[in-house]
Parts: sequence; structure tokens; C-alpha cells
Amino acid sequence: MSTRPVAIVVGVGAALGLGGALCRRFAKGGCHVLVAGRTADKIDAVAAEILAAGGSAQAVVTDATLEDDIVALFDRACAVPAGSLELVAFNAGNNLRKSLIEMDAQAFEDVWRVACFAGFLTGREAVRRMLPQERGSILFSGASASLRGRAEFAQFAAAKAGLRMVAQSMAREFGPRGLHVAHVVIDGGIDGERQRTRFPERVAKLGVDGMLDIDAIAETYWQLHCQPRSAWTQEIDLRPFKEPF
Amino acid sequence: MSTRPVAIVVGVGAALGLGGALCRRFAKGGCHVLVAGRTADKIDAVAAEILAAGGSAQAVVTDATLEDDIVALFDRACAVPAGSLELVAFNAGNNLRKSLIEMDAQAFEDVWRVACFAGFLTGREAVRRMLPQERGSILFSGASASLRGRAEFAQFAAAKAGLRMVAQSMAREFGPRGLHVAHVVIDGGIDGERQRTRFPERVAKLGVDGMLDIDAIAETYWQLHCQPRSAWTQEIDLRPFKEPF
Amino acid sequence: MSTRPVAIVVGVGAALGLGGALCRRFAKGGCHVLVAGRTADKIDAVAAEILAAGGSAQAVVTDATLEDDIVALFDRACAVPAGSLELVAFNAGNNLRKSLIEMDAQAFEDVWRVACFAGFLTGREAVRRMLPQERGSILFSGASASLRGRAEFAQFAAAKAGLRMVAQSMAREFGPRGLHVAHVVIDGGIDGERQRTRFPERVAKLGVDGMLDIDAIAETYWQLHCQPRSAWTQEIDLRPFKEPF
Amino acid sequence: MSTRPVAIVVGVGAALGLGGALCRRFAKGGCHVLVAGRTADKIDAVAAEILAAGGSAQAVVTDATLEDDIVALFDRACAVPAGSLELVAFNAGNNLRKSLIEMDAQAFEDVWRVACFAGFLTGREAVRRMLPQERGSILFSGASASLRGRAEFAQFAAAKAGLRMVAQSMAREFGPRGLHVAHVVIDGGIDGERQRTRFPERVAKLGVDGMLDIDAIAETYWQLHCQPRSAWTQEIDLRPFKEPF
Repeated sequence: MSTRPVAIVVGVGAALGLGGALCRRFAKGGCHVLVAGRTADKIDAVAAEILAAGGSAQAVVTDATLEDDIVALFDRACAVPAGSLELVAFNAGNNLRKSLIEMDAQAFEDVWRVACFAGFLTGREAVRRMLPQERGSILFSGASASLRGRAEFAQFAAAKAGLRMVAQSMAREFGPRGLHVAHVVIDGGIDGERQRTRFPERVAKLGVDGMLDIDAIAETYWQLHCQPRSAWTQEIDLRPFKEPF
Repeated sequence: MSTRPVAIVVGVGAALGLGGALCRRFAKGGCHVLVAGRTADKIDAVAAEILAAGGSAQAVVTDATLEDDIVALFDRACAVPAGSLELVAFNAGNNLRKSLIEMDAQAFEDVWRVACFAGFLTGREAVRRMLPQERGSILFSGASASLRGRAEFAQFAAAKAGLRMVAQSMAREFGPRGLHVAHVVIDGGIDGERQRTRFPERVAKLGVDGMLDIDAIAETYWQLHCQPRSAWTQEIDLRPFKEPF
Repeated sequence: MSTRPVAIVVGVGAALGLGGALCRRFAKGGCHVLVAGRTADKIDAVAAEILAAGGSAQAVVTDATLEDDIVALFDRACAVPAGSLELVAFNAGNNLRKSLIEMDAQAFEDVWRVACFAGFLTGREAVRRMLPQERGSILFSGASASLRGRAEFAQFAAAKAGLRMVAQSMAREFGPRGLHVAHVVIDGGIDGERQRTRFPERVAKLGVDGMLDIDAIAETYWQLHCQPRSAWTQEIDLRPFKEPF
Repeated sequence: MSTRPVAIVVGVGAALGLGGALCRRFAKGGCHVLVAGRTADKIDAVAAEILAAGGSAQAVVTDATLEDDIVALFDRACAVPAGSLELVAFNAGNNLRKSLIEMDAQAFEDVWRVACFAGFLTGREAVRRMLPQERGSILFSGASASLRGRAEFAQFAAAKAGLRMVAQSMAREFGPRGLHVAHVVIDGGIDGERQRTRFPERVAKLGVDGMLDIDAIAETYWQLHCQPRSAWTQEIDLRPFKEPF
């Protein structure tokens, strides 16, 4: 009996968001996908769509900020019959725009907990499971805020810069032992349900290809996973052609 | 009656640490200094030394990770008779070297809480008090880990990178309104009690001037505070001449 | 009659170097390739190999540091019957390790002329030819030295940092007008003829996958070229899994 | 007979430019200053002003892009009776705003030659003269363009990034041997004759303290020179409080 590659995507919301696109791309690539997110309805829909298309997936309700949830998720991944955990993508994170002067302490902490702490938990569990096999990809969804602070974005920049350092430190520690850790700097609006629902005028104004196509982003994650270890990428940016940077 | 400049130093430990040196330098520059740290004995000693030298200071027991403590500290600073809060230095932070694979979640969070979250609380309160006067310096003790992840330092790098983004975001938001926010990248061992007590062999091996003199660092903070607003520094690094980087 | 995509690779040396690999990959992707390098024998061999494999290519002897040569090369590319210039890769550059104190002025200039000035000439000509069609990829071979100076590498770091700024400035100026400009930070030894001939012991010591496979690098360039404009990469790094960074 | 500290400032133009301010500050600090620039009238005026104020200075007509001129300048500095070369500031550089598509090759080279190549020549000669004494400061006037490419500034960014890498490489090579090499990232308009003459409306619009005061910048250079070697700065930025960055 041959093994099946298993993938985990942490931080899946709406089917038309980046998390859903990552799940579909990994399934299309032959992986059994654990679809992890907070809302059962949403992740069930993503898993069902993959199954309907002939792929293999399961939804796992997960609050990525809870250590027990993340450990249980990886336990599930490692219990897949004949499975081998090969690919983990961390995609959680909530932006929040607010002047520092009005920022309350709990909100500052919450942004960090979702974008950085959950990434640490996910990364650590991934390393713990993959290191014995000396093989596997761990990919983090980053943001340009990880590289540059900005007025009214202190909380988001602080959390995303923290996540980037987790990824970079992991790459330096575990790359030589066979684990491919990469950080994708997503710069610009993602053309998904969230933006289209909340900011329809902004989306319209940006025009054709003015936002990041979720399937194009997902393709890049897949390419990173497929890189041979003689030429690995640790960091890559992605932005729409018109995006100022 | 003329006003007295008031300074706060958050994160004061041993008298021969950087926090103590900052207090002494600011007092020498004419400030009334609030010496804030967790341990009463230590901060009392720093304040007493300043008083003995003819300066003005008061010790304020403060856990910088607690919002109430930070707010109370700034209340005290603003209650100084005829005082004007002009200078705040955030100097808290604990390094912790450990492989990511063995890092427990609480420890990861604790490092962040001291080095980043406390910095946010301090920075926010400083802005709230200083913005009406459109004048004041807010200085953060940073680390080279804020710029670069490293094996076994994910927790520290993540926290320090977060702090750096808080400082940079604050500078972009409040610099044009008169507040000088700067981040000092301290790279190398600090020649203080902590290193001399814990790692005497390392200190000996580094030789003369092989570690950062605390008074030299403090002088740089004071120079930053004295810069005219036509030529402000947002980021500066400091390292011993032999330190590889 | 349909159009043929045309590609140019500037800086082709030995068949088993990165330049040759780029030519082969672009030809395999369906491009007619202009193989540009200083040495007729070498570029002829690359072109012949492509033709033998059923591809389409022509060798063009080019000194990339000479404006006339670069202009003539692009003239040739634009004269390809039914051709459309779609892809340009700049791959010239010579490292030179020497203490600054012993560096002579001409050598410093020569390193810059090959790695940076020739890149400017190539980039400018590419923009001039591609801008009217509002489409095309311009890819630069960079180095980790572009990000970080190092003892005995001032000349190389200065030239490569200059090239990176040319690429980044081009991306900001011409990206919104449809040209995809990317900079590939190649970090580590390239597993090609040059290293194998000059430093056989170092190659042996690095072990399997310890150096960058030239075909793996070339695949990344091709992926960059194929990115849809809704999710373009401006910068990506590539290094062997064991490479310290 | 005691020794006199000698300083060199390369790139002095108008008396009210940064070069002139550096000369005056170094003279005020007790140095005999070699005022080096292309135009005799201008540097004579700077030297005369210093002498009139009781300082010590000499003008040396120098084209900083010519190796012979730079070598002769350092020969002059080392021939100062009872002198000891302690401080060198490199301040040459011409910005040029132009679209890459219209940039001619000679102009691209000229920008590099003044801003980067001349910096290499100056830095190398400084190291050659100072290394035997294991002491001395070498300070480079940098620009934010050294960190970030920008539309229409490819030539300037490429040259300034090159200069920054020269400085950083020198610091890594010669810092441990006692030479203090620092790079000052000047971000924003300099409030000197050039800007006031060429762009009076821009200056007026920026308002009070909206541009970098040349004496404030010069003070920072002097502080860098005075840093003890236990806490050296390699890079520092300077910008007006209102400057967006």
C-alpha cells in the first residue's frame, strides 16, 4: 500500500477566500487536505467542494489560537490511513486599522494571537511531526506590513513581523534538516469574498487584475512546495501589477 | 514657576544595567526621572543613587505587562509638580534561547508580553500624554533580532520585530505631530551586571570594549532626545567594535 | 501567421552554467531564444544543443557592457520574423573576492560594469522594446550580496546592490504599465561548470543538493515569467537547503 | 609637541551646503580640516570662514572621481605637521531624476561615478592611511534611495545602494581593527543653498523645520566620530519630523 500525501491548511474561511483556494490547489495536486477553520459551515463547504471534484479532504473545526486545537488537528493529520504529512500552510490573520492612540490592549493582543501566536503553534507542531521524516513544507501567509510599520497599522505590523521572524527562524533552524519553511509576502488586496463584500467600490476602482487572484496565489504556494531542496525559496512577494509599493 | 522636564524609564533592573544607566543620564540632563521596574529594592537603589548625586528621581514599582500599572505610572509622571513629561524610554525585554521544537506556548507568549506588548502599552500611554503638547521623545530599546530571525531565537526575534514595528508605526503616525519616536538596535552583549554575573567567561573572552558600555548607550539615547526636529533619527544601531554582524 | 514568443538571455557562458540552463528552459517553453554571451564557441554550443533538441535559438556574440552591443542584440530580437519579445533575463556578473585595501580602482569599476551597468543597459532596452506592447518579463539574476555587505566583497556587494535597485526602480515605474520586473536573489554556490572546475573540493564537501541546481533555478525563472499579472513577484530568494543564511 | 587631529571632508560645494557645515563642525571640534571640492572659489570660502572663526583649515581642489586627486588629497592630509588623520567624511553625490527609458548610458555612469566610485576611492584611501594607527572614523553621506528603488530614480538608487554596501563591507572588514565606518541615511530635503535656490516654492511649502538643518546633520556626524568603540553606530537615519517615509 502506497502512502498518500497529507496537507493541512490553517485559517480557512469563505470558500472564495485564499484558505479555500489553497485547499483546492493542494487537493488538485494529489493531497488529502485537512481544512481547518473556526466555522463549521464554511470549512464543510470547502471540503465538500473538493470531494465533489474528485479530491480528498476533511473539515476540522479549529481555533488556531488554542494549543489544544492545533495539537488535535495535527493528530488528525497524522492519523490519516497510509498518510504522510507533507505540506502545512498557515493562513490565519485579521487586519485591524486603528490609530495607536485609540487601540485597546485586548484588541492589540487579539491581532497578535491570531496572526503570530497561532502561527507559532502551527509551525511548532508541523516541525514536531515532520522532522523525523526530514521532509515537508511549511508555508506562511505574510503581509507587506511584516516589513514596514505604518500609521494606524501598528497592531497588524507587529503581529505580521513577529510571524515573519518565526518563519525565518524556523527556516534557519530546520532547513538544513530537510524542512522547507517559506514566507509569502502578500501585498495588496486579495480578490476574495471578504473584499468583494465589504469594499465593493474599492474592488471596482482597482479594475481588472487590480487585486490578487486567489488561485494565482495558491499556485505559487504549490510551486514552493514542489521546489527541489537544492533551490528553495525562503521569501517571495506577490502583488497585483498596479499595486504601488 | 518654571517647568521641570520629567522622564520615565520602563524596565529598570540592576543599578549596573542599561535601565539604571538611562535613569542616571536623564537625571544628569536635568530631568526628574521615574524609575520603573518590577523589583522595589533594585529601583529604590537606582533612585537613591540619583538623589545622592544631586539629581531628582522616584522609584515606581511597575509590571510593564500590566495595563493598569503602566497607566498608573504615567499618571504619576503627569502629577509631578510643575513637571512636563518630555522623555520616555522603554527598556524591558527578556531573551530566551530555546529550540522552537521545545518551546512551550506560555513561554513564547511571555517573551512577547514583556518585549512587545509592554512596549505597546508604554508607547500608547506616552502618545496619549504627549500629543497635546506636540513635543516629546519616545525611545525603544531594540535588538538585532528585530531584523533577523535565527535558530533557537524565534520567540525573541518575533517579540523584538513586533516592538520595532510598533515604534516604526508610531513614528509614521505621530512624528509629523511633534513626537520623536526612535528605535535603538542594540547588537551585542551589554556590559552590565546580568552578563558579568551569568557569563563571566564570555565577558572575559570579549576583551576590552568587547561589550556595550551602558553609559555609552545611555549617552546615545540622550543625544536622540536632544535632536532638533529638523533632523530626527528613527533608527540607529549600536554594537561593540569587534562584534560580528 | 501566428507570433512566436522571443526570449533573450544576456550573460551566457558555459553550457552547464545558469545562462545555458535559462536558454534551454525558455526554449522548452516555446520561445525562440537569443543566446547572448562574449564567447562565440560557448554560446554556439548552447544554441546548437537547443536546436538539436527541437527548439529554436540563435547565438549573438555580445559584450553586455557595451551599449552598442546591447542595442544590436535587441534589434536582432525584434527582427525575428513573426516574433514578439516576451522575456529577457539578465544573468551577467563576476564575483571577485579581495580586501578593500588591496582593491584597485579599475577592478572595482569592472565588477560594477558587468554586474550593474550592463544590467541597466539590458533593462532599459527591454523596457524600450516592450513598453509599447504593455507586456513582457524582465528578470535579473541577483545575489545575497545585494542585501548585505561583507568583508572582502565590497565591490561585488556594491555592484549587485546597484543592480537590485535598478530592478526595483523599474518594477515601480513600469509594473503598472504591464512589464513584470523581478529580481532573483541567488544565495549559495551554483552547481555549474565554473564551481565544479574551480572548486572541486568545496563542491564535494557540500554534498548532495548542497549547491543550486541550474535547472531548478531556471524553472523558477520560467514560473516567474508565467505568473498572471494579478499576482506578480518582484523578489524571490533561492538557496540550497543546507546553506546558512 | 602634541598631535593635531586632522579631518577631511570630500564633496564640499556651497558654504551653506552640508559639506561646508561638516567642515565647520569638525573645525569647531578642534580638527584641522581639509576642505575638498571641485570649485576653488567655493572651498576657499569655506576654509576662509573657518580661519576667520579661529579654526584651522585648508582648501584642496579635488575631483573625487579621480583616483590621483583622492590619493593626493590624502597625501596632503598626512603631511599636516604634527597631524594625525582621525576623521574622513564622504559627502559627494548628485541626484538626477529621469525615467529609466530616457536615461542615457553616460549619465547613468556619471551618477555612479560621483556617488559610489568616489566613495570607494575615498574609503579605500582612508583605510590605507588609518589602519596602521588602528583608529579613525570614516563617515558616508547616504540617502533613503540606498534602501529603496523608486520610479525615475534608478540611477540614484543604484549608486547610493552601492555606496551603502561599500560602507557596510568596510565596517565588517575594518571595524574589528579599530576603524569606525558609519553610513548616514539622509532622508528629505537638505536646507541648504541648493534647495533654496532651485526650489524656493518647495522650501516654503515645507515650513519651519520641514527640511534638514545642515548644522543639525553635522552635529550627528560629530557625535558619531566621538562614540567610544564599545558602542559604535554603523547606520543612522535623519529626516525632518514631517517627512513621510
